[in-house]
Amino acid sequence: MTNRIGLFGFGVVGQGYYEIAKNHRPALLPETIVVQNKNKKRDHSLQFSFDPKDILDDPCDIGIELISDPAQAYDYVSSLLKSGKKVISANKKMLSAHLPALLELEKTYGGSLLYEASAAAGIPIITCLDCHFAGDDISKLQGILNGSSNYILTRLFQDDLSLQEAVKLAQENGFAEADPTLDINGSDVSSKLTILSLHAFGRYIPEGEILTIGVQHVHAADVALAKSLGLKIKLIATAQKDKEGLNLHILPTLVGDNDPLFLVENEYNAAKITSQNLGEQFFQGKGAGSLPTGASVYADLTKAEKGYGYSYDKLNGKKITTELPQAASLEVIISADSPDALHPVIGSASIHQANGRYWAISTVSTAELIKRLPAIEANKLSIVALNNTISEDNVLAQIQRQETVNIS
Amino acid sequence: MTNRIGLFGFGVVGQGYYEIAKNHRPALLPETIVVQNKNKKRDHSLQFSFDPKDILDDPCDIGIELISDPAQAYDYVSSLLKSGKKVISANKKMLSAHLPALLELEKTYGGSLLYEASAAAGIPIITCLDCHFAGDDISKLQGILNGSSNYILTRLFQDDLSLQEAVKLAQENGFAEADPTLDINGSDVSSKLTILSLHAFGRYIPEGEILTIGVQHVHAADVALAKSLGLKIKLIATAQKDKEGLNLHILPTLVGDNDPLFLVENEYNAAKITSQNLGEQFFQGKGAGSLPTGASVYADLTKAEKGYGYSYDKLNGKKITTELPQAASLEVIISADSPDALHPVIGSASIHQANGRYWAISTVSTAELIKRLPAIEANKLSIVALNNTISEDNVLAQIQRQETVNIS
Ligand SMILES: NC(=O)c1ccc[n+]([C@@H]2O[C@H](COP(=O)([O-])OP(=O)(O)OC[C@H]3O[C@@H](n4cnc5c(N)ncnc54)[C@H](OP(=O)(O)O)[C@@H]3O)[C@@H](O)[C@H]2O)c1
Ligand SMILES: NC(=O)c1ccc[n+]([C@@H]2O[C@H](COP(=O)([O-])OP(=O)(O)OC[C@H]3O[C@@H](n4cnc5c(N)ncnc54)[C@H](OP(=O)(O)O)[C@@H]3O)[C@@H](O)[C@H]2O)c1
Repeated sequence: MTNRIGLFGFGVVGQGYYEIAKNHRPALLPETIVVQNKNKKRDHSLQFSFDPKDILDDPCDIGIELISDPAQAYDYVSSLLKSGKKVISANKKMLSAHLPALLELEKTYGGSLLYEASAAAGIPIITCLDCHFAGDDISKLQGILNGSSNYILTRLFQDDLSLQEAVKLAQENGFAEADPTLDINGSDVSSKLTILSLHAFGRYIPEGEILTIGVQHVHAADVALAKSLGLKIKLIATAQKDKEGLNLHILPTLVGDNDPLFLVENEYNAAKITSQNLGEQFFQGKGAGSLPTGASVYADLTKAEKGYGYSYDKLNGKKITTELPQAASLEVIISADSPDALHPVIGSASIHQANGRYWAISTVSTAELIKRLPAIEANKLSIVALNNTISEDNVLAQIQRQETVNIS
Repeated sequence: MTNRIGLFGFGVVGQGYYEIAKNHRPALLPETIVVQNKNKKRDHSLQFSFDPKDILDDPCDIGIELISDPAQAYDYVSSLLKSGKKVISANKKMLSAHLPALLELEKTYGGSLLYEASAAAGIPIITCLDCHFAGDDISKLQGILNGSSNYILTRLFQDDLSLQEAVKLAQENGFAEADPTLDINGSDVSSKLTILSLHAFGRYIPEGEILTIGVQHVHAADVALAKSLGLKIKLIATAQKDKEGLNLHILPTLVGDNDPLFLVENEYNAAKITSQNLGEQFFQGKGAGSLPTGASVYADLTKAEKGYGYSYDKLNGKKITTELPQAASLEVIISADSPDALHPVIGSASIHQANGRYWAISTVSTAELIKRLPAIEANKLSIVALNNTISEDNVLAQIQRQETVNIS
């Protein structure tokens, strides 16, 4: 079978997929490549176009959307789906915002939409959630879903860099954008958690509703505290089910050395899934980059070619509806340069002084933390979650050991 | 779409799949279940038959083979394929012996054969190798592929048990058979490595050709040595490509704490894959048991339903041919109760005495080790491989530190 393939975008990911298809199966190369910037130098042996209609009005079978602009991406993908095409996208921002509408188009017009590369790039996590966990009941999903943040945290722990130095190194090594904001403030992770939660739990929770705290305020003193406890800090995205519903949150979190997430370093991503049938499954792989992300696009293409589409098994045939996440209660370590900065956020918790900073441990609901985000941001507070295998008492004792004056 | 499903075998795995389908999608329950023993007590609400023809001569669409007898399994699976049926099997012994013939039948008669549960039970490793690593070039695959052996090694390290005690505990907890031979001598692992190598490298290497040393002679003194170096011993299956060809071997191996395999404990399995596009991917999950294995069968069923078949991407359309593995050279620690037991196996390596045992470190080819297997078995020698991140010098210094008289 031969498919006519149209490609939007020829940047990091587009070139990765192209390279793989060229070396491995030229039949999976695009006939048309639509890009935007007429002034860019291009490889003249390839067929570039600047007119989206060259793909949208063409009888292509499969459309691949790998552009950097989410609004334009939504236009392309929805118009391909309206023609009943098979569509592949890597655009997490666009997908997390529009999946409900896109799934309706898929159903109405008989096309299909695959997007493995949109979450944890090189790890086949969406396909696995969709197919391998069919017939299963997932209670918890935890992931390290942003390569830049994980690279930065790794440098803090391995090389004793400051956050600023680590961000700079990430940029120099191609693991963070010129503007690293979306990576380090966790926004990229929340897009991915929205997508994964749909497949893992059949719930659509818009990324704006998820408690999201990135690595931007992780402090050298947090690193020192974690190290003194034999722990690391990782930016962990969690989706966990309890009787009331689904709890979602993303924040820097203490991780112990018996947890497979402990060994996930540098630009690597990971996902840990707890389910009734399978116990604990763990996946680790590259979370960004030209070839890893291109490989997921290529794998989607081989699936699209076979007519494979996602089952959305957990939706169970129901229409996607938007849900609000439940408010879980979290134990967090909050620290700042001054006690005054802490007061608006910690409630009645006591404040401890150690390592030149002021610390409090507080049990607080995600809903409450979301309300306090402006104060957290304004005061550059560092928030690090304990996970449930690490006790507050141990952490507190260690803070106190590091030289303490209980000042509250 | 409704499929008529026939099931052979209703043991540990068959019941696991049945349970999942019943709770999740009764349309995926079998119409007919063929078992063997007429005297067994059965649940009378189910439709059992003792005549294979009830499935083989029936217009079923999908046949699932989950029996314990490899010879009979081959008969059932090949006759289903000859009728062009979609077939699912978990029978690693049968598959590793007959995959070339079965693939011919698949091609000739237009049926399909899926077997996710046959290697690393609950981990979707075969599907991932087949689809997600399409267009990729895998250089190395390493795995912990036998839950019983891993459970036993975990007990040796965590609870200081002897091998005999650990085997007994594994049996009591349902992680080893009444006759644990195939588990602890590594034979189960070699079946799986044959299957995985076909998907990862497009090479068919019969299990009888693979250097296979199980955990049966791992000694408390090996455990003490590894612990004193901050290492663990895991039963590692390796398939690694070099210029000459593919090197395969299975043996107890030292693993360091920066390797994700280090944290794989108890009945869990894992696979680590190094490839050109994806760097290092790591998968961890349950390697045996009713629900984990049943879940893989159920996932295969949802794939078969959609008409999904393996691509055997790495075969590249070529016919499977049998290959011999290449002889890699390995660094191994060999130990025994007496120096005489070591002499026939270690060549000119020097012998050290420590911890009440006699030790030698030797660099030897897998081909040579295969020749020495009868002597190894007769003398109950313990063989533990160094992996390439652990240096011979460190190990030797540690052996000598544990009290040494160099007696050769
Ligand atoms: N990079 C990664 O590692 C990674 C990983 C996972 C997912 N993703 C996602 O993959 C997508 C692509 O990322 P990237 O890193 O490849 O981006 P990139 O390197 O910035 O490339 C973007 C490409 O999109 C083209 N483009 C932008 N707007 C367009 C428009 N309106 N019409 C047509 N073409 C347009 C650009 O055209 P010009 O060539 O004319 O500039 C360029 O070729 C994004 O959604 C991103 O989130 C990336
Ligand atoms: N157990 C695991 O965790 C696991 C994991 C991965 C793969 N596997 C593989 O899955 C397969 C099944 O394993 P299992 O643990 O479920 O075995 P099991 O518990 O021993 O059950 C075997 C079943 O096969 C039936 N059977 C045996 N010979 C038969 C024949 N000639 N015709 C019809 N039925 C026959 C038995 O019938 P009766 O009921 O009449 O005795 C029984 O129902 C094996 O190939 C095994 O290697 C098992």
